[in-house]
Amino acid sequence: MEHDQNMPRRPQVLAFDVFGTVVDWYSTVRREVEALGRGLDADAVASAWRAGYPVAMERVRSGELGWTRIDDLHRMILDDVLEKADCALDEATRVELNRVWHRLDPWPDSPGGLARLRRGFHICTLSNGNLSLLAEMAKHASLPWDLILSAENFRHYKPDPQTYLGVADVFDVDPAQVMMVAAHKNDLASARACGLMTAFIRRPAEFGPNRPNDTSDDPVADFNADDIHQLATMLGC
Amino acid sequence: MEHDQNMPRRPQVLAFDVFGTVVDWYSTVRREVEALGRGLDADAVASAWRAGYPVAMERVRSGELGWTRIDDLHRMILDDVLEKADCALDEATRVELNRVWHRLDPWPDSPGGLARLRRGFHICTLSNGNLSLLAEMAKHASLPWDLILSAENFRHYKPDPQTYLGVADVFDVDPAQVMMVAAHKNDLASARACGLMTAFIRRPAEFGPNRPNDTSDDPVADFNADDIHQLATMLGC
Repeated sequence: MEHDQNMPRRPQVLAFDVFGTVVDWYSTVRREVEALGRGLDADAVASAWRAGYPVAMERVRSGELGWTRIDDLHRMILDDVLEKADCALDEATRVELNRVWHRLDPWPDSPGGLARLRRGFHICTLSNGNLSLLAEMAKHASLPWDLILSAENFRHYKPDPQTYLGVADVFDVDPAQVMMVAAHKNDLASARACGLMTAFIRRPAEFGPNRPNDTSDDPVADFNADDIHQLATMLGC
Repeated sequence: MEHDQNMPRRPQVLAFDVFGTVVDWYSTVRREVEALGRGLDADAVASAWRAGYPVAMERVRSGELGWTRIDDLHRMILDDVLEKADCALDEATRVELNRVWHRLDPWPDSPGGLARLRRGFHICTLSNGNLSLLAEMAKHASLPWDLILSAENFRHYKPDPQTYLGVADVFDVDPAQVMMVAAHKNDLASARACGLMTAFIRRPAEFGPNRPNDTSDDPVADFNADDIHQLATMLGC
């Protein structure tokens, strides 16, 4: 049967970006930094910690650093943020705080929306977070992944094509049968360049109340949705 | 506090062998071969198919074959078994039958026993099955893994040490904090040689009713259990 140009193709695998798309890193990190009570500006620490992340990954992608997991990159950034804030935290507190990324809270729609999508598709992560981070997060946040896939599987960070194409390879399907789901248009653009379908999820509060996020439609995405429940409805789940 | 020599150490991660330990490959494969109704001896096909598996993996481990997933090894063995049985199956039927390994039924205690253990430990697979096979099986058989790890993660098949040590590396723990759980003493011996704790699960029917399986205690394992529920009880879950 010929493909109907008016109907979107139907993927077999949905690959989800995680930080910001499925879980609310800003609120969780801010809350834990506030709870420390060391006079830190929790909003500023959360933002600076996250802002250091693409910079640190770029050092790995460029070859300046050998393969380094996000847990270790997060720790390097944290130490830098604390030094700039002139805050002396002991080692045990740093270790514990660094693990906040393993216990991020989900957006309210994520557990239920994913459970719906799981009935119709293979649902997996495609995150730059390391495997144990994603596994602990899934347990904490009740995220019912069929499979946790990470940059760690491919030893390449997004947006390297090895990550997007790696998902198709693992599931033994064509790239066009995988749909990348993300709240970040650059992630979707890189996935699309590899032949994947794409779905944009609007997350206006990703960066906190003082930093409005771009939630305009992605005009070239196959789907634009307000949250994961709405995506499930669009996909007939 | 000093370690009490009379108390077993407590692992943080339980890594499960899957085929035979968690799922009943024999009954499922036999049933599907019988359902084909091509005059095949279903008991013999199931046994020969499985018996070809360590042989095929050894071709990969020795370097004779490059990295090859179990899905593809299973297909090579199936073609060989069918040829020897003088059975002409069309391509579509072979593809579908080969995927029986993705939909193996669990032993009756597996879903509930794993759900109990998941409350106290990180539970993961360490199987030679490929990632998509294990993901589909987990969905079919309701196996609540925290993380699916496979030989495919490490590009080494068990019993290569890279697999056992790879689990500890992924979870960033010492090998002694990982316990391998398996119905096969050779798997446990290889894990133990890498410093892992070990638990032996008795599966008397793994190879079918006509091929009694060794269920004597493993004298050097940390635990010997009749099934996964009993292991959960032994571990206080």
